[in-house]
Order: sequence, then C-alpha cells, then structure tokens
Amino acid sequence: MAVIVQKFGGTSVADLDRIRAVADRVEAAIAAGDKVAVVLSAMAGVTNRLIDWVNEAGADGDGCEYDSVVSTGEQVTVGLLACVLQGRGLKARSWLGWQLPIHTDGLHGRARITGVETAALRRGLDDGEVQVVAGFQGIAEDGRIATLGRGGSDITAVALAAAIDAERCDIFTDVDGIYTSDPRIVSKARKLDKITYEEMLEMASLGARILHIRSVELAMKHDVRLQVLSSFADGPGTLVVNEDDMLEQELVSGITYSRDEAKVTLTRVPDRPGVAAAIFGPLCDADINVDMIVQNVSEDGKATDLTFTVTKGDLAAAMGVLEAARDTLGYAALVGDPNVVKISVIGVGMRNHAGVAQKMFQVMAEKGINIQVISTSEIKISVLVAEDYTELAVRSLHSAYNLDVE
Amino acid sequence: MAVIVQKFGGTSVADLDRIRAVADRVEAAIAAGDKVAVVLSAMAGVTNRLIDWVNEAGADGDGCEYDSVVSTGEQVTVGLLACVLQGRGLKARSWLGWQLPIHTDGLHGRARITGVETAALRRGLDDGEVQVVAGFQGIAEDGRIATLGRGGSDITAVALAAAIDAERCDIFTDVDGIYTSDPRIVSKARKLDKITYEEMLEMASLGARILHIRSVELAMKHDVRLQVLSSFADGPGTLVVNEDDMLEQELVSGITYSRDEAKVTLTRVPDRPGVAAAIFGPLCDADINVDMIVQNVSEDGKATDLTFTVTKGDLAAAMGVLEAARDTLGYAALVGDPNVVKISVIGVGMRNHAGVAQKMFQVMAEKGINIQVISTSEIKISVLVAEDYTELAVRSLHSAYNLDVE
Repeated sequence: MAVIVQKFGGTSVADLDRIRAVADRVEAAIAAGDKVAVVLSAMAGVTNRLIDWVNEAGADGDGCEYDSVVSTGEQVTVGLLACVLQGRGLKARSWLGWQLPIHTDGLHGRARITGVETAALRRGLDDGEVQVVAGFQGIAEDGRIATLGRGGSDITAVALAAAIDAERCDIFTDVDGIYTSDPRIVSKARKLDKITYEEMLEMASLGARILHIRSVELAMKHDVRLQVLSSFADGPGTLVVNEDDMLEQELVSGITYSRDEAKVTLTRVPDRPGVAAAIFGPLCDADINVDMIVQNVSEDGKATDLTFTVTKGDLAAAMGVLEAARDTLGYAALVGDPNVVKISVIGVGMRNHAGVAQKMFQVMAEKGINIQVISTSEIKISVLVAEDYTELAVRSLHSAYNLDVE
Repeated sequence: MAVIVQKFGGTSVADLDRIRAVADRVEAAIAAGDKVAVVLSAMAGVTNRLIDWVNEAGADGDGCEYDSVVSTGEQVTVGLLACVLQGRGLKARSWLGWQLPIHTDGLHGRARITGVETAALRRGLDDGEVQVVAGFQGIAEDGRIATLGRGGSDITAVALAAAIDAERCDIFTDVDGIYTSDPRIVSKARKLDKITYEEMLEMASLGARILHIRSVELAMKHDVRLQVLSSFADGPGTLVVNEDDMLEQELVSGITYSRDEAKVTLTRVPDRPGVAAAIFGPLCDADINVDMIVQNVSEDGKATDLTFTVTKGDLAAAMGVLEAARDTLGYAALVGDPNVVKISVIGVGMRNHAGVAQKMFQVMAEKGINIQVISTSEIKISVLVAEDYTELAVRSLHSAYNLDVE
C-alpha cells in the first residue's frame, strides 16, 4: 500500500461538482490500494476576492490579518471534500494548517514551511482515513495563521509528500502535463513523459507557469517524485524526477518563451572598474530584478555599451532610476524597449553535447531573426529577440531540435 | 477606563462600508476612554450559503467539517475589521475561537462554551489594543473547530463580557432597542429604556427575535449588563438588567405574538391515568416540541378533550404520529389547525399585582376574540386565538395596558 499525495488547484475545486470529481479521483486511488493525503487550493477566484477585500480594508502592517482572512478559502474546500468523501462511505477528515500543525516562519503572506508534524496524519492514513489538508497555510511561531504566497498549495503538497515519505505527489491541474513548448503557439508540441527537476525549474521560471518554482526546488531537495496531470482528463501526466531516473536523455526537452521582458541599453558608459555596481546598485535598492546582462568589450578602452533586461512592469521604474543617476553614471544615451521576448532552449542533455547553441544561432540566422542578447546556463540557452518573432522563433526551434510530434 | 464588549451582527458587517461604520463605533468608544473587545458575526447571508454547500456536499456525521467550513464567515469579518482599525492608526488584532481559545463541549454545530481564556486578551486591552473576536466559534476538546448554533455570536459576546468582567455588553443590531410590541403591527409601540432578563427571556422565546434566548440566559446567570442598540442609528438602546436595577417597575412591559403555532385537538380521549404520557411520549420520541397543553375536566368521568400546540412546521409530523397511535390512544377524532396565533402579555410586575390576566380576558371578550387555550407563568399570560385576530388582539392589549407612546 503506497502513500500518495494528490493536490488539486483552484479550477479543480471551483464548485461542488468539481469537488465531486476530485472525490472520484481520490476514490479511484483508494480502490487501487493507495493511502491518500489530499491537498486543496481555494475555489478559483475566491482567494483573489479575499485579497481585494483586505487591500480595500486598509493597513495590515505584519500581514497577520491578511493571512487569517485569505486562508479561509482552503478551509472551505477541504471541509466540503471531506463531507463528499464521507457521503460516499469513505473515512475522511480535513486538516487546517494550525491543526496538524504545519509550522512556518514569521514572514506573513510569503511564509516558508519550517516543519510538518505528521504523527496524527500517519495514524489517520494507517487507519484508512483520507487526510484532506488545506494548502497554502500554516501556523507561525506567533500562533497566527501564515500563508505561503504564490504557488502555496503546490508547496504544501510537496512538503507533505516529503514529510510522510510519499511514493508520489500528483499535482492535478488544468493541463495534462508538461509540453515541449506552449501548445497555443506550437501545434506540434509534445507532452513529455518525464522531465528532470532542473529542466522543470527552467521551464517554471521561463514562462511555463504550471508548477511554481519553489515547489519544484522543494521536490528536488527532498527527492519527491512529482507528477503533473489533468484533473479534467484521464491518462498519465508528466513525471518530474531525478536525472538518474531518466533512462534515455533527450538533448533538448523544451522550447520556452517569456514575453514579460523589456530591454534597457546604456550607450557609451565609461569603461572603468565599479561602473556595473554603480548602475545595478540603485536598481537593486529600488527592488527591480535584472535578468540578462550583456556588456560589450570596449572598442576604444574608454566607453562601452551595456544592455540588460527587466520585467515589462519594471521598465518605467528602471528608466526613472537610471535617468536620475545620469550625471553619476555618465552614459551618452538611455534606451528602453518593451517589445522583446526571451526564447530559451532547455535540456540537461546539452551538458554533454556541443553544438546545441550553434544550432540555435543557425536557426535564428536562417529565419532572419536578429539576436539582441544571449545568456546561457548549464542546461539552457536564452536569446532576446524582437517580440514580433516569438511564434516563428519558437516553432522553428521546436522543429530544428526534433521535438515535433509525429 | 471601563472595558466594554461590542457585538455586531450580520447586517452590521454586510460589506466593507458597513465594517467601516463598525470601526466608527469602536473609535468613538476608544475616544470616550473605553477599552474595547469587539465580537463579530459573518457578513449577512454568508453563513447560510456555507451551510447550503455543506448540506449539498453530503454526510458529516460528527459535524466537525460543517463547523470548520461555516466558521470561516467570522474569520473573514474579524480580519477585515482589524485591518480597517489599523488603517486608522488604532492598535487592533483579530482572535479566532481556537486562538484565545474559547473552549466548548463536543456537540459540533450547537456547542456550548465551557470556558474562555482571557489572559492574552486582557494584556491586549491593557495595552490599548482593540480585541476583535470571531463570534459563533470555539474549539472542542478534540482540537476541532466547534460552532455554537443559532444566536452564537451573541453568546460569544456575553460569555466574553462575563469572562473579562466587562462593564457592559452592547449588542448592535438592525433595530434600536426592545419595543413594547412589534412596531410593524403596533404603530404606537414604545422603545423600552430597560427590561429585566426574565422579561427579555419571555420576549425572546415568544417571537421578538432580537436576542437569542441562550445569550439572555447566560447574561442573567453571570449578571452581564446587556444593551440592545442600533448599528444604523445613534442614541441609546434598551438595557437588559437585573430586576434590582429597575427603579420603577411597570406592570406590563410588552405584548408579543407568535404565529409559529399550530393547534392539535384529540376528542374523547379515555380519562384514565397514563393517557397524557401515552400521547406525549411518541411526540417526544419524534423530536416534536409541545408548547401549550390544555386538558378539560371530564364531564362523564370516561373521556375528555385534550388540546396542545406545536410549531407549524411540526404539525404534519405530529398528526402522523398520533394517527399511527390511534388504536392505542383510543380517541374519537384528531383535529389539526395551523391558523392560530399565540398572544402574550409579559411583565415582572404582574407577580405582585392581581388583575392583569382578568384585563386580558376582558379585552379579548370586548373585541369578540375567542380564546382557545390559555397558559400562564409567573411573569406572562399567553392565549391562543385564531390567526386572523393577531393585529387586533395585539393592538387592543397594547392600549389597554397603557403601553402606547404618547
């Protein structure tokens, strides 16, 4: 009898009918001989409405009241699912974060889990009782409810799976797995049977918003086998596993894109030590995250061009900060461009294979797409190009790396 | 610096604007030098929607899941009020039932408070922090949330006021006090400045649904001075106090009516010992509450007529039970009549004055209203009459006892 964790997101528990469909999946797992712990999000839309109310209500310095109000969404869904399961003759009970408890640090609104007490939960599982746990919430040392921030329910599910040493953590969502690219753009995108944690991390941070990066990191750290699958359709999803679990390693596993990029260029920045610090220090102070950075070699030894990217939402703020520091920085011109996209090729296989980057550059050249910025990591290559080329670039790369479904 | 408890019901916290109006009242009390603990209900309508969901979801044998889901309504309002108060520069925090904690017994869905821990709350009050407490909820010994049933937030407020020895417990509601009769029927009804607990108990149980009977009982037991007043209008309300606090005792303080009555008559029931038990035993087993009972003296020593009242909702069930027992009971006919109303005259003053009942009977006779059943207690006289006479009877009695406003 394996112990598995099943996590269902907001669209999967959006109303009572959907909650009954969740109960179907739990029942199927029980019938297959598994012991099941379920983690639920709030009904789709509920958490946002609660957040709006708190924001309208006014100040909440430490975030304690925010957390107390916002955590009610999950409290409702876990109670309802427990009722539905009991109505079918199954043993079931709900657990709130403070009841298990799930301990967190004191960063209300974006708390981190510091420990999960599992004794009572394990007793329940051994007793054949479905354990329905509220996602997204825990209890801080101050005795107040703490919520985990974006992707919180995924994090709860993974932390719980790690704590009870679950065989697998199934993340039921509104897509049926991880694809080689965005199916809305690439009609030939293929569902992956398996993907490594590292690749998933790159996918998650590069725009394929299925699993939050924090939950993938946590799964990797604790070696929790994740499965992403659909709560609306049957069939297996995509397993997120260790590299060792991959029998046959594909060179490239996915092509992603992120439109949420904007480019900032400073021309003729004095080429002297400390200039990068002088530029990025004020941006950091203004809480602006910088992604790709390129500094050209200086032609005359006196001045150089410097380009970097920020999110589109931060562009105006970044321009303002640099405008204000013009005299100190001594650049010639400051140019902002929101019409860019970051295209990335991801694959753990490229660690041991040369030529992956070269192929990318070739494809871009053949299609007449100008590469503005390049950045690389061990398992990915990203290029910044004009936003208009998004679909062409992604589709061409998808074909070039033989990812198209037959 | 007096400590006061302010309680606001569902219509008083129905949306953020109403919650801001609640904050106005809290602020005024603070400005007047009081230390304030606030008890809130859920937004009007929210609890009923949650109850509907749980009922639709299915079985919940022990009521634990019901309580966990339904208690979220108050969790939202207390958090929002704390935010609003903080936004105005006041110190404030919310408390959930399990946080203080408010201990209850294990009767989920209709739990009774067994104790309120007040140390943290008192520290907060001494520190000038408004203590915003979720009504209607506590924690049972099993570590699960327990709700208190109908009128639960009033009960929380009174229990809290008793536990922290508050100067007064103000119940803010959608009426501005307790009236000598229902103003919708009696245009000359007068707001009472004071009323005794005993009278209020009779008022509460006889149809003036402003304070739940359990909260009045609790206030009487712990000598908590209650005030009923409007959250929509300014000015004092009605104080509910000990008889000793009444300087001048009115003979009669109110005329109430209850339309939720139905009459059942059994004719020619054998007049022998044990027949009442034989009739009311099966009704009790069927969980049917019987209110007024009249048994006529037997004319021939062989058989008698027996009349009693139940709620309108229980009439069909009561008729069914008695129909089924016809052979055992041996009555001649079984007659049910839902078209009746119970009219009551209430006043602690009648304990020491004769003639109150006589005046009632006279008034009814003068107006040609036939009295079907009479029942009395120390401080009230009730009569059952045909429902069509409700307004006429109430208005006539209101005038006859000099209750009309000038």
